[in-house]
Amino acid sequence: MNRPSLNFSAGPAILPKSVLEEVKAELLDYQGTGMSVMEMSHRSAWFTQIIEESEARFRELLGISEEYAVLFVQGGATTQFSMVPLNLMHDSKQADFIDTGAWSVKAIAEANRYGKARVIASSKDQGFVEIPAVASSDIDPAADYLHITTNNTIFGTASHFEALEIPDSVPVVADMSSDILSRPIEVNRYGLIYAGAQKNMGPAGVTLIIIRKDLLGKAHPLCPLMLDYSTHAKKNSLHNTPPTFAIYLAGKVFKWLQELGGLQEIDRINTQKADLLYTFLDQSDLFYAKVQPPHRSRMNVTFGIREGELEKVFLAEAEQERLFFLKGHRSVGGMRASLYNALPLEAVHGLVAFMKEFERKA
Amino acid sequence: MNRPSLNFSAGPAILPKSVLEEVKAELLDYQGTGMSVMEMSHRSAWFTQIIEESEARFRELLGISEEYAVLFVQGGATTQFSMVPLNLMHDSKQADFIDTGAWSVKAIAEANRYGKARVIASSKDQGFVEIPAVASSDIDPAADYLHITTNNTIFGTASHFEALEIPDSVPVVADMSSDILSRPIEVNRYGLIYAGAQKNMGPAGVTLIIIRKDLLGKAHPLCPLMLDYSTHAKKNSLHNTPPTFAIYLAGKVFKWLQELGGLQEIDRINTQKADLLYTFLDQSDLFYAKVQPPHRSRMNVTFGIREGELEKVFLAEAEQERLFFLKGHRSVGGMRASLYNALPLEAVHGLVAFMKEFERKA
Repeated sequence: MNRPSLNFSAGPAILPKSVLEEVKAELLDYQGTGMSVMEMSHRSAWFTQIIEESEARFRELLGISEEYAVLFVQGGATTQFSMVPLNLMHDSKQADFIDTGAWSVKAIAEANRYGKARVIASSKDQGFVEIPAVASSDIDPAADYLHITTNNTIFGTASHFEALEIPDSVPVVADMSSDILSRPIEVNRYGLIYAGAQKNMGPAGVTLIIIRKDLLGKAHPLCPLMLDYSTHAKKNSLHNTPPTFAIYLAGKVFKWLQELGGLQEIDRINTQKADLLYTFLDQSDLFYAKVQPPHRSRMNVTFGIREGELEKVFLAEAEQERLFFLKGHRSVGGMRASLYNALPLEAVHGLVAFMKEFERKA
Repeated sequence: MNRPSLNFSAGPAILPKSVLEEVKAELLDYQGTGMSVMEMSHRSAWFTQIIEESEARFRELLGISEEYAVLFVQGGATTQFSMVPLNLMHDSKQADFIDTGAWSVKAIAEANRYGKARVIASSKDQGFVEIPAVASSDIDPAADYLHITTNNTIFGTASHFEALEIPDSVPVVADMSSDILSRPIEVNRYGLIYAGAQKNMGPAGVTLIIIRKDLLGKAHPLCPLMLDYSTHAKKNSLHNTPPTFAIYLAGKVFKWLQELGGLQEIDRINTQKADLLYTFLDQSDLFYAKVQPPHRSRMNVTFGIREGELEKVFLAEAEQERLFFLKGHRSVGGMRASLYNALPLEAVHGLVAFMKEFERKA
């Protein structure tokens, strides 16, 4: 290994180094058993403790009450795009969507197969570089749910729509795949939260679900058994063999976050990291942030370079200096630096120093 | 660590030690990148190579032709119980099932939600300790498919029904979760093969699919996007973020198996291991095999103890001696030793030696 690599991947993404070191140390011998966690029955006392502890730590971090079930499922957010309407579109068979980018577009398409997905606000015409305005009166009180995407990885925008008043009759469903655990949230505001693990929680292959218990048990008659949230809720995520290693690893990430000081502290650090990069971008003559301040994501910073022909040079030199995954999503181009929880502040300092030097030479 | 542990888990199960050692060595630094495989974008050149190599090795081991797609999906065999009828029950909306135990029972229940699952043979009345007789004439040539479970982990029975002639019009769908890669098979005999990785292939969290390409693209109109095989086939298992670490690990297990000598060689070793244990059981005065020779599984050996009150003592002493997971499935009781590919012959020798000594003292 040469100099440390700086990993700005949008996901699967950087994990805390101390977590990986722990995993490495016990990879062939979990707590003196002489076996890897990967090799253990999911019904064993060892794994039972692992999954219970992972759930407890996750609940503690987010302050999740007993009114909610926490589930570990498979299939990523894309599976949730079907699972949500299959489970929640049971009454008016209509749901309201705030369309903030590629992920909500996919969620809308899938919901339209099971009912009516009504788009109440969209920034499509602005190329999704901003969060659309939306008023309380736009929401149909008869909607089965209101769906939001809190962070848009591709475009670098974010909003939890916290100022929006939502009728009590409408559960809020939030795709928080790319900003869960990045700051405190008010879980009671939501009916359902879903998030793939591979940004702020662990390796790809496990999806976390927080669902208000009164929303369980109303799935579509043709809903596949494993896509019914109640199947998982009834068996504490052990209806069949869960992705044991991913759950074990997520538990360690939760522990790391607790020991760091929880969501208040990571919130502070995440603000610091994002501020550092956006401040540089806003004063640079060569680089520019693609998103305006009120709409900016702290997790995914999208940026461009004023002299377009330098983009390839920049990306190539960055990689040579071991700054990885700075290329923007293939659908939008440009650059993107993902600053998830596990990315240390020093990595952002490293990126800014590299960009300053690049600008000086340009 | 004290003496080496002997891991007889039915799944998640033992993995080749050399594979785990390789994974450990590169856990924080994959090929000099300074990053873990878990931290890399699934669109990166690094991971592209990993998934392509995994697929190529799997194809090579089983001799899979280009007529078939190989897919890495999530959700385990239980998700396949829905996915198969959602994709394949498109014509007569009837499928024929050979019922050999708890897993086929679940597959039948799920298929009955999307069409008619016709049970053409069952050993339910025999408590599933044998494989039911079935004749070619039992199969309806109009059935959308014939479903078999080749190995029954809970009961310790196995059959690939290779003597059974199957009408050309009926694709055979096989759940091979617990014996895939344990011996050579004739892939061309099947329309679809599915198998969770956590017995012979890798950690829990990835399911391998082999599907004849002409069976793609006929999913039920309400089939969730991620449960449509063609979604995965079109994007080479990269429609969304796949379980990258599990695919990486499975690739290493495939490589280990190739270097060992492939399926011919593992077949020979598996026979040797199973023979060793069954031979002991058949001559023991204290222990007995639960399944008669023609119906026996080589992967999961179920056995009992003639003096019932000794069962608990046996299991407790075994665990004390670091022989783990010998308890039978909770639904049937008794004992079970799973002898998957990665379990070395010496472990079976160790088990037999322990049982002999236990019998001597009893």
